[in-house]
Amino acid sequence: MTEEHLDRRKRKFWGWGYADTSVSDSEILEIGGMLRDKFGLRLRELAKAPDISEIELREPRVHAPESLAGICQNDTWARAEHTLGKNLGDFVRGLAKQFDNPPDFVAFPRTEHDVVSVLDWAHTNDVAVVPYGGGSSVAQGIEPIVSDDYRGAISLDLRHLNRVLEIDRASRSALIQGGVLGPDMENQLRPHGLSMRFFLQAFEFSTLGGWIATRAAGHFATGFTQIDDYVQAMRVVTPSGTLQTGRIPADGAGVSPDRMFIGSEGTLGVITEAWMRLQDKPTFKVATSVPFSDFDKAVDAIRALAQSGLAPTNCRLLDPTESLLSGASDGSDSILVLAFESADHPLDTWMQRAAQICADHGGRVSAEALQGRSAPEAGHAGAAGKWRNFFVRGPHYKEGYSRMGVLRETFETACTWSAFPELHARVMQATTEAVKRECGDGVVACRFTHVYPDGPAPYYTVVASAKPGGELQQWAAIKQAASDAVLATGGTITHHHAVGRFHRPWYDQQRPELFTSALRAVKQTVDPNMVMNPGVLIDPK
Amino acid sequence: MTEEHLDRRKRKFWGWGYADTSVSDSEILEIGGMLRDKFGLRLRELAKAPDISEIELREPRVHAPESLAGICQNDTWARAEHTLGKNLGDFVRGLAKQFDNPPDFVAFPRTEHDVVSVLDWAHTNDVAVVPYGGGSSVAQGIEPIVSDDYRGAISLDLRHLNRVLEIDRASRSALIQGGVLGPDMENQLRPHGLSMRFFLQAFEFSTLGGWIATRAAGHFATGFTQIDDYVQAMRVVTPSGTLQTGRIPADGAGVSPDRMFIGSEGTLGVITEAWMRLQDKPTFKVATSVPFSDFDKAVDAIRALAQSGLAPTNCRLLDPTESLLSGASDGSDSILVLAFESADHPLDTWMQRAAQICADHGGRVSAEALQGRSAPEAGHAGAAGKWRNFFVRGPHYKEGYSRMGVLRETFETACTWSAFPELHARVMQATTEAVKRECGDGVVACRFTHVYPDGPAPYYTVVASAKPGGELQQWAAIKQAASDAVLATGGTITHHHAVGRFHRPWYDQQRPELFTSALRAVKQTVDPNMVMNPGVLIDPK
Repeated sequence: MTEEHLDRRKRKFWGWGYADTSVSDSEILEIGGMLRDKFGLRLRELAKAPDISEIELREPRVHAPESLAGICQNDTWARAEHTLGKNLGDFVRGLAKQFDNPPDFVAFPRTEHDVVSVLDWAHTNDVAVVPYGGGSSVAQGIEPIVSDDYRGAISLDLRHLNRVLEIDRASRSALIQGGVLGPDMENQLRPHGLSMRFFLQAFEFSTLGGWIATRAAGHFATGFTQIDDYVQAMRVVTPSGTLQTGRIPADGAGVSPDRMFIGSEGTLGVITEAWMRLQDKPTFKVATSVPFSDFDKAVDAIRALAQSGLAPTNCRLLDPTESLLSGASDGSDSILVLAFESADHPLDTWMQRAAQICADHGGRVSAEALQGRSAPEAGHAGAAGKWRNFFVRGPHYKEGYSRMGVLRETFETACTWSAFPELHARVMQATTEAVKRECGDGVVACRFTHVYPDGPAPYYTVVASAKPGGELQQWAAIKQAASDAVLATGGTITHHHAVGRFHRPWYDQQRPELFTSALRAVKQTVDPNMVMNPGVLIDPK
Repeated sequence: MTEEHLDRRKRKFWGWGYADTSVSDSEILEIGGMLRDKFGLRLRELAKAPDISEIELREPRVHAPESLAGICQNDTWARAEHTLGKNLGDFVRGLAKQFDNPPDFVAFPRTEHDVVSVLDWAHTNDVAVVPYGGGSSVAQGIEPIVSDDYRGAISLDLRHLNRVLEIDRASRSALIQGGVLGPDMENQLRPHGLSMRFFLQAFEFSTLGGWIATRAAGHFATGFTQIDDYVQAMRVVTPSGTLQTGRIPADGAGVSPDRMFIGSEGTLGVITEAWMRLQDKPTFKVATSVPFSDFDKAVDAIRALAQSGLAPTNCRLLDPTESLLSGASDGSDSILVLAFESADHPLDTWMQRAAQICADHGGRVSAEALQGRSAPEAGHAGAAGKWRNFFVRGPHYKEGYSRMGVLRETFETACTWSAFPELHARVMQATTEAVKRECGDGVVACRFTHVYPDGPAPYYTVVASAKPGGELQQWAAIKQAASDAVLATGGTITHHHAVGRFHRPWYDQQRPELFTSALRAVKQTVDPNMVMNPGVLIDPK
């Protein structure tokens, strides 16, 4: 086993990004200074990022067979890189050099046939397989935690299945391999004038297959939000065989096969290819941001927008704390970030009407927006631009928060408009109380990442002072309080962060019992030895 | 068992509509004259509609137990009414007094508890249950054809579960019982200013539960086309228990439970209630129709519209034959029927841009449409109006066609834009050849009922002279030729007519094998004795 199979740029074994780049200490300290000044957080001296030489992993329990050796690696870097995801607990444990559940080895299939071979071997040998895309899971979806019922656990890293295989320009679709990262995919689509327009926050280090497996949501705030709607057809390799669905724009023939695998989080099989719906590169854009002094009125405005049929591309509401956190305002206002894009037509009529809706609900709309034009503050220097930069850089900052002793994590949900006021009140109260109890100080911020005619997807950010060594317990208590409040008031445990292993306690509560049985029956059919990502979604045996 | 439980207006036991109404003979003869004059069809003297006194049914094989007797009927009318659906074969057989597969009795549950009781009894007694909504199936989805493995078969008519139970105005949603007919539902929603805006052709005699079970598509030609997107949450009674999903605008937690039951066509359970997404009643409307002398250019135009992001409410293309059939043109042009509606904003900008797209592709756009206004021909007297009337009255005419010896039936599909040219050419050729061979004369017409960014949903109408007594064989041969061509060129066997029993041969070909196993495993879980609508979608045992 050699490292030559990692034929692309090496990624960090801990933290976000490539091994040869990093957020600088000064950038982290600048954010820390802002958090101290604005929110009174206590910082500690920047902890040193772990070095690979300091990482000790348990001995592999199983080894790749001769036939697979050429595509497998079990060196410390490869195993450590595939141990942790990208949530708070992952960063904290990584920083503490706790890599307790490494895969025994990592397979890097170069073809679909390799995927079949790995699954065959694992199925026959009772070895768990964890499909691995970009590794950006925030729900312990890729951590190889398995019981002693398995002889071992391996990661299946799909990075080499990274090509756009076929373009259908007339149907604005492409056949794309599941292991491609967002930027790599867009680079291959660009020469054809096409784009998926699916710029989620983890875009840089997440894959098409991962998006489909976890029901990711992109940057469109309305309309085509979730990846579900982008999938035209898919190909899934399971231990029981390979399944290929048909390329139909809207099939009405029975239960949807695609929808049985979308959201299966690696528990049913590996998504090796998918025909995806794409878009023309937009040529018209218009954007603005609208301050509201009253959060409730801003909620009414965004509901009216979501129900207007105008379908803005961006339609995100930041509460005052979120606005302050991201630098979009001084924290006195809620900010509604609003944008339209089109490859077909100018958007001034759309923006005019949307701006009027905001004005009708008390938003301080710019004169430009009311005339359907982009407002100056929508540029990179303005509120919307500041918010955008903060959003894009977000994942890179995460290791920095842990290094300077800041407890920062997010959680999200979706609920009906009628459920939102109580959900929001109880979530804010329960979370804030837990933060005070666990951390002494700290804040809870809210934004809407996506809005629907029937309800919003609220997204909460917690920023507080961490107890060195106690971060996992602190966050567990806060997450428990928040999630219990979400479920008690009609929300889902996740709108787009997936269930993984971390959300199981609440997912198990919200999932209809009969559906659990049905899902288990499906798993039994396609994965009779229960080797695919055991512990995610349902208990394996 | 008495008839008092049929506490609503009595429906025909054969044909479309209520027992006390009918399409008049003169209306049928007028259509016949048109078909003779325009297409040279041979007509026969109007056959007499069957009278209930002429219908002989086999003896019931099972009887309702005492505990259910109060909600069950086994008189000839009730059984005959629940024997046949609404496709050509159903009308032909009804006219010939062939009611070979009547249910042994019909249950009319008044509550969900009644549904549970009926399923319990059927499950325990090996009696097949066919859920029955409005009876409008054109795919033999409600005909109780079962093997000798069952002691009998009953229909479960859900007409009494017909109430809108709860309105959530802020979330524009309502909790609605599954057995409500379209008009009844809209009547209950109207006082709240809400509407589902789901006016499919069978609207008058189809139910919410039926729409969900069969993945019906509504009158919106783009955007929210299929019922799938309208379902916020649902409640399903199965022989293994009742399943209730959560009210989440967009859930990202694992595989969607809703999508496992949407399209299950009564094989997994009975949809007793659903929370549905609704719309405000539109206050702005603009419509036009655009003639194209070149069908291919009209296809390019409608593709551009489908990919424009303008989301027209109506965007239907009629080929010259379809235009002639419906009276929308003299048959020299293809007609694109185009409309926008909104409860929020005037639509002149939308219509202007859409009209320009049509003009750019050679459509003869009216001056009014280019200015964003409704054109005179969009009114009831114009092409769009004529098309609309013909569409709405369509189901009522069907028995008339059979009575005057006209073989008239439709089939439909969906495919990518890139697949369409070959699909259309081969379907037209294969179908036309089969029509000539089987009927001597006749025509095949095409329209697009729905269009998507990645492809259209083409809908074909066959009108030919029937051989008295030979209609079933004639249509079987034509359907075989058409369906084989559809599948060979990348289409689905149905975009919105469902699979039922009639489409099984082709559905079995297009359904991935591993998905068949998975679906069977789900059925085994929720319906272990396989009593729910056996033969639909998959073989029961």
